[in-house]
Amino acid sequence: MTERPDRSPLTSPRSERVRKVAALAGRSARRKQGRFRIEGPQSVRSLLTHRPELTREVFLTERAAGAHAELVDLANRAGVPVQLVDEQILRALVRETAAAGPAGDGTAEASGALVSPQGVVAVGALPSEDPASAVAALAALAPAKAATVVVLHEVRDPGNVGALVRTADAAGADLVLLTRTCADPYSPKAVRAAAGSLFHLPVHTGAEIQDVLAQLAACSITAAATSGYADSELFSVELPTRIAWILGNEAHGLDRDTLGAAPLAVRIPLAGHAESLNVHTAATVCLFETLRQRQAGA
Amino acid sequence: MTERPDRSPLTSPRSERVRKVAALAGRSARRKQGRFRIEGPQSVRSLLTHRPELTREVFLTERAAGAHAELVDLANRAGVPVQLVDEQILRALVRETAAAGPAGDGTAEASGALVSPQGVVAVGALPSEDPASAVAALAALAPAKAATVVVLHEVRDPGNVGALVRTADAAGADLVLLTRTCADPYSPKAVRAAAGSLFHLPVHTGAEIQDVLAQLAACSITAAATSGYADSELFSVELPTRIAWILGNEAHGLDRDTLGAAPLAVRIPLAGHAESLNVHTAATVCLFETLRQRQAGA
Repeated sequence: MTERPDRSPLTSPRSERVRKVAALAGRSARRKQGRFRIEGPQSVRSLLTHRPELTREVFLTERAAGAHAELVDLANRAGVPVQLVDEQILRALVRETAAAGPAGDGTAEASGALVSPQGVVAVGALPSEDPASAVAALAALAPAKAATVVVLHEVRDPGNVGALVRTADAAGADLVLLTRTCADPYSPKAVRAAAGSLFHLPVHTGAEIQDVLAQLAACSITAAATSGYADSELFSVELPTRIAWILGNEAHGLDRDTLGAAPLAVRIPLAGHAESLNVHTAATVCLFETLRQRQAGA
Repeated sequence: MTERPDRSPLTSPRSERVRKVAALAGRSARRKQGRFRIEGPQSVRSLLTHRPELTREVFLTERAAGAHAELVDLANRAGVPVQLVDEQILRALVRETAAAGPAGDGTAEASGALVSPQGVVAVGALPSEDPASAVAALAALAPAKAATVVVLHEVRDPGNVGALVRTADAAGADLVLLTRTCADPYSPKAVRAAAGSLFHLPVHTGAEIQDVLAQLAACSITAAATSGYADSELFSVELPTRIAWILGNEAHGLDRDTLGAAPLAVRIPLAGHAESLNVHTAATVCLFETLRQRQAGA
């Protein structure tokens, strides 16, 4: 993972180096290479600003280098090699191959291939998946101060995982923890949906839900879940100042054991005939209500 | 559009009737046929419950008919023909063809082809696009009573349009209006994302933004927009009881003219480093804050 990048110019879209970046759409290739791919000026700017130490290489078209001179500056300051490539090579870097399918998140990725990286692609070092780091990050939060944690459990769609990271960031969450069965936040689709927020706030993967719940209790952070059957309504409850929203699977919500283990369950009022909210919408309502109450109380 | 459906059994996935349903992924085919496609038990149940008069035909696999006997009952009661088809034909009904691309919403549709309709597909009569109906629907709202309207202007992604209809419904909106330049809410991807809400509340397409703004003013409904530059913060403002949230394009937000014409502009507080929220997230925050204030005031 610390091998020095090859700085020779990229001239063929079929070269080994190009194919290795394209292969990062697949989870197994990300693990094997210990790298992940970041696309588009907003995400790459965020990476270079907040996590320059993760950045291994930046690829830009000449046009993008002109339009986003600050990216070249940021990369230079971080000592990150910048490669100017032509449009054809840039497209090849983000080409989603059929091989990405069986690797685990291929089908959900397919749509993402149509999003243009606007001439900017970066490769970063893949943060390791470490169950202990999630628990340690909780323990490291300042005690007795307000805290908002977001725990994703069995959220399977990479687009949802990315969007949840972005919304958690916007609502001022301190930490996002993903259990082992979630989609990989470092898949290109998740990275795109996170729109740079993946590099703003600490995101830990590979956690075990039981360990997270135990550590939350030990840290006096109230685990909160949404349920259509809960007695308390979100807007009528005074939310604890140290809170962790536990968000579940897109189709099935939280499993019964996890829901039962959360000390706080709230119902989001549904005024129309809609049967439910999707996980990202529910999270948005809960996280911004948490922010509203915090602001009102401050 | 009132021709009687062919009730003979469907035996070939390559038959003309199957191909016509598959073609409804494209906007031009929807207009030419005057029909649209609804997939999955939840959406079809909502269609048959709330808009049975729109339903032309329901296709079910034997397994789905067993698992969702209520759909067969609802269809029978509405006098809608039900066709039992095998799995292969059902898949062919929702197969997205390359031809859907140039029709206008093909690329954004592509990902949707991977979502399973769970053995249930229906065909409905396409509601006409009528700029006058949007304005008339506003005028028909009870005067001097609380009202929440959602106006989508230049929202281009069918998945976003569907999700916005679902969230508007869940938050108790009375009406959703789409301007002419929005994605078609009757594309399969939008219908799926709306999860049945498209049939719960009135949705009008083809509106002109100027006409909508003029009619809102005439009806004493305050047009409200979000802006990162607004002085007022959403959570500090007492929202008017008659309000229309005007939501803009995914990439550019609202154009300057429309933003300038909205009497109320609010800023959604962003606590993290996130630069912005996507349009659906912003709408969720605004609509549920509207609902919260309404409940608190009631």
